[in-house]
Amino acid sequence: MISAYSNRKVLVTGGLGFIGSNLALRLVRAGARVTIVDSEVAGCGANRHNIAGAERDLRVIAADVGDAEALAGEIRGCALVFNLAGEISHIHSMRDPARDAALNAASQLRFLEECARQEPGVRVVYASTRQIYGVPKYLPVDEAHPLRPADVNGVNKMAGEAYHLLFHDVYGLNTRSLRLTNVYGPGMRIKDARQNFLGIWLRRALEGDAFEVWGGEQRRDMIYVDDAAEAFLAAAATPETAGLALNVGGDAPYSLAEIAAALIAANKGGRCEVREFPAERKRIDIGDFITDDRQFRALAQWTPRTTLAEGLALSLDYYRRHLAAYL
Amino acid sequence: MISAYSNRKVLVTGGLGFIGSNLALRLVRAGARVTIVDSEVAGCGANRHNIAGAERDLRVIAADVGDAEALAGEIRGCALVFNLAGEISHIHSMRDPARDAALNAASQLRFLEECARQEPGVRVVYASTRQIYGVPKYLPVDEAHPLRPADVNGVNKMAGEAYHLLFHDVYGLNTRSLRLTNVYGPGMRIKDARQNFLGIWLRRALEGDAFEVWGGEQRRDMIYVDDAAEAFLAAAATPETAGLALNVGGDAPYSLAEIAAALIAANKGGRCEVREFPAERKRIDIGDFITDDRQFRALAQWTPRTTLAEGLALSLDYYRRHLAAYL
Repeated sequence: MISAYSNRKVLVTGGLGFIGSNLALRLVRAGARVTIVDSEVAGCGANRHNIAGAERDLRVIAADVGDAEALAGEIRGCALVFNLAGEISHIHSMRDPARDAALNAASQLRFLEECARQEPGVRVVYASTRQIYGVPKYLPVDEAHPLRPADVNGVNKMAGEAYHLLFHDVYGLNTRSLRLTNVYGPGMRIKDARQNFLGIWLRRALEGDAFEVWGGEQRRDMIYVDDAAEAFLAAAATPETAGLALNVGGDAPYSLAEIAAALIAANKGGRCEVREFPAERKRIDIGDFITDDRQFRALAQWTPRTTLAEGLALSLDYYRRHLAAYL
Repeated sequence: MISAYSNRKVLVTGGLGFIGSNLALRLVRAGARVTIVDSEVAGCGANRHNIAGAERDLRVIAADVGDAEALAGEIRGCALVFNLAGEISHIHSMRDPARDAALNAASQLRFLEECARQEPGVRVVYASTRQIYGVPKYLPVDEAHPLRPADVNGVNKMAGEAYHLLFHDVYGLNTRSLRLTNVYGPGMRIKDARQNFLGIWLRRALEGDAFEVWGGEQRRDMIYVDDAAEAFLAAAATPETAGLALNVGGDAPYSLAEIAAALIAANKGGRCEVREFPAERKRIDIGDFITDDRQFRALAQWTPRTTLAEGLALSLDYYRRHLAAYL
């Protein structure tokens, strides 16, 4: 079968990270000529193991997305850019805000300038986050909801997204931005809670330890990483998404307590301890979050296909086989 | 008369600039102990002449707002911070986006960290801009209007504002942000159109030359600088504005053609040439803009007091006496 991606040059920034690597492997399977750009900055999501076994099917460039010199040649000739590079830690962003601003805002700006210069017709899909809405004023949260980031990382991601839309409006660059809800699955950081609360839960469950549930009543959308990767492909394949920022949610909202129960069920055992929220986290927690992604589903004919139970089972299975590479 | 500002320590960042200097002089008259922080970066609005005659009534610190070391002692003990520092040129921001990001976003973040560290109870008023709304989706534009900056400067000002609101939400810093419409009056840059289209119009009118009106039908709010300065004081004096971003508009919207006619009338002579929009400007022009500032007027009991005719007459009078200092 010849896919739409056969032999097309595609760039995936942050491609050693959690979502980026899954997307890159998906593109390799579809026949694309994939180049990963990843600076492997400590504390971001990069993990070489994420592409283990596929090293010869793609190229990896060690560079920051803001490094125009290193990337000029990589961008030239690209049909598609999936732009997932960025610092991911909310807590880290509050401790070292300047570093977060450099990685998430300034570098993105330089990257877009280089895209406009080297390959003005390239299609770009940017990975934004539901985090930029901050504490919801109403639920579910649609794209018209005001933006009020609850941490420094959110401000910088908001700026990164705004640069993408600006380059569409002003320079005609073919960009769109996906505001993703919580993504989980193989390749996520599980050594701590830096990327996603579910990471450390998985680790504890697999190691036979109790995991901590902070609060428990907060509701979240969860999207399995394969569904997120398909959302990126669908966005790129839908010209009508150009210039838009679109929500991408999961199959249904669940409370943290429900997610914990589903994890224990999928693991066929385990236990959790419900704790009060630690003060440092509480300051930047956003309460319930439920995504309204009807606009994206309608435009891009996309829908998540993996239930929470299935996604958790697949994740547990992956980490049972690869645990050591993620600790 | 003893005012609310008598002997209070007040910091005005960007205080050699157009609005900042007018505000600083107003505070000096009210008896405040005023310190101006201004980096006098080339191309921003700083002009020493703006405080001519008042040099002994206030202190001037030459520093970037992001220079925590230089500012720690200045922030300590302050009752109020009026934060007007920033790069102002839209066109410049598109030519050197990284510089704009450093001045308008990264420096603001460091400044807020230092405020929270040195004087956590300080009241902060940030100078934002209507520019962050981009091309209006509806008129008049209220605060719920989506943010879609039409240039790099707008993205960075949006980030600067978001940092202020974040520090309110997360660290309890007493901040608010004023989204100002076009401000004009004594002290504005008139040597070119970098700060405001009206600047170069004033210069040409005073020099007896024709000024160019690009388009002419676009409508704008215009606010006289004394009214803008009063808006800053009113915001600082209104506890209910904490944590809010509020529009501040002029007395009424006018078309550029009407403003041109009012300028010629106030100048008792002059002429303009109506031109088509230059391409570089057109890409980042936003069409009509009319502000809905009812929320701020109601909360802060503020209203603009200077009509366009009065404001233009006052401006012409000022520049007739001080023209050389602004060329």
